[in-house]
Amino acid sequence: MGEKIKNELKAIKFNGSQLIETVDVAAIEFPLTVYVDGEEFATIVCSPTDLEQLVIGFLASEGIIRVKGDIDMLEVDEVRGFAYVELKVKQSINKEYYSKRMIGSCCGKSRQFYFHNDARTAKTVMSRQKISIAQCFALMSEMQESSQDFQQTGGVHNAALCTVSGLLISYSDVGRHNALDKLYGHCLHHNIPLRDKVVVFSGRISSEVVLKIAKIGAGILISKSAPTTLGIDLAADLGITVVGFVRNNQLNIYSHPERIIEAEHLNIYNEKEPSN
Amino acid sequence: MGEKIKNELKAIKFNGSQLIETVDVAAIEFPLTVYVDGEEFATIVCSPTDLEQLVIGFLASEGIIRVKGDIDMLEVDEVRGFAYVELKVKQSINKEYYSKRMIGSCCGKSRQFYFHNDARTAKTVMSRQKISIAQCFALMSEMQESSQDFQQTGGVHNAALCTVSGLLISYSDVGRHNALDKLYGHCLHHNIPLRDKVVVFSGRISSEVVLKIAKIGAGILISKSAPTTLGIDLAADLGITVVGFVRNNQLNIYSHPERIIEAEHLNIYNEKEPSN
Repeated sequence: MGEKIKNELKAIKFNGSQLIETVDVAAIEFPLTVYVDGEEFATIVCSPTDLEQLVIGFLASEGIIRVKGDIDMLEVDEVRGFAYVELKVKQSINKEYYSKRMIGSCCGKSRQFYFHNDARTAKTVMSRQKISIAQCFALMSEMQESSQDFQQTGGVHNAALCTVSGLLISYSDVGRHNALDKLYGHCLHHNIPLRDKVVVFSGRISSEVVLKIAKIGAGILISKSAPTTLGIDLAADLGITVVGFVRNNQLNIYSHPERIIEAEHLNIYNEKEPSN
Repeated sequence: MGEKIKNELKAIKFNGSQLIETVDVAAIEFPLTVYVDGEEFATIVCSPTDLEQLVIGFLASEGIIRVKGDIDMLEVDEVRGFAYVELKVKQSINKEYYSKRMIGSCCGKSRQFYFHNDARTAKTVMSRQKISIAQCFALMSEMQESSQDFQQTGGVHNAALCTVSGLLISYSDVGRHNALDKLYGHCLHHNIPLRDKVVVFSGRISSEVVLKIAKIGAGILISKSAPTTLGIDLAADLGITVVGFVRNNQLNIYSHPERIIEAEHLNIYNEKEPSN
């Protein structure tokens, strides 16, 4: 960063018996305002690291770009918190579409739901990659050990890109979506093939997280946290294997067990029956 | 709810030694699309409970309404997930302003930041309410015991409105902002005076959370989680006492200790020196 941003907080600590003055190391939140073709598009409140990857991944998540090459110019002013993006093909960004809800004809039945821009970019993941249970545990440990930030502040989320045998890169952010966007930006920036990759994540497996994994294109998502029902419905629908609650030598497989070596012969039946 | 929404997920559990079929109780995510005066305004992904309070609190958080009386009609279709709001005074909602970043002249120095609509509605909290450290612990325990959801699913956040001597009401949601919005909606709905109240919260103390507490108008925020530096900068600025990491008979006071009985004589000095 061009400017050192403080991450220390003075606090008064009650340690169980008395009050003491202390200095806490806290997560930094940094407002980054993104301009696209001269127009203010969004302000992302984020951790002030890996801002280029964040902008690339964020624009891809929002459906503004599909590949890195769609960006003509990207400049980040890390001191003032602005990012300026020029697209190769100027598009009038139709803000009307962003966050407009789209409901398929099947809605009353399965309650599936996507936003318009998600439906354009989140595709069913076709991956034949398999992973063992021991590898799931090993990747989760590796990610947690790689994250100094979390151990210091207790305030950031982590998302790591892995092969089944090891961690490739890990990103942190105060926002769990930002951590995934940074990972997505990294993959687009370096044109990394995703089909054989695994995403390891510290946060809850919500519908938005699953949609992001589908956009990234990874077939396996491993998290230490809980899923939501809608998140798992979408994962079943989008072909993503979700493993949750990975902790204390236990884990739960919620969708597409055919990619988990020890469980490939089992079914879960959260997957919807094919209708008409 | 008009329709029973499933909150069970079939899963394959690895229990440390073998795979077993199991049924998990998971948090439900429910898409609620809010129309204001006939126009689609936003879709909130939420827990399907207390939707009226959620809509009221959400519209207040967004600066669309200030009091419950600004709403002429509110109808919630709980089956299909739609809320229809008619305002007393039709306003053309200037979407250009929402989430536009506003930077005061002091920005380079303190990095304070608000969105336009926050600056219109988040006011400095004037409250002389005091609380003891023992009361902070007692309120946190009371909120945690009142939340069955979290104990079942591990997937929801809680926000409770309290006096210093006990819990008044608690709301849960898969989204931590939604939990606070439900609480805000409850306060507006019942016209509850806030100055003497305490908000107890399960989530991280980010800038958005602090801005919401300022809008609600409570002077004391207690959380079991970590703060961010920007959250504490804003709390210092907006006159809010923040107590974080309330767990295991320990806690940290991050701002305005004058409301904590045992610490009222202490200073923290995260507060900015007055400049102009």
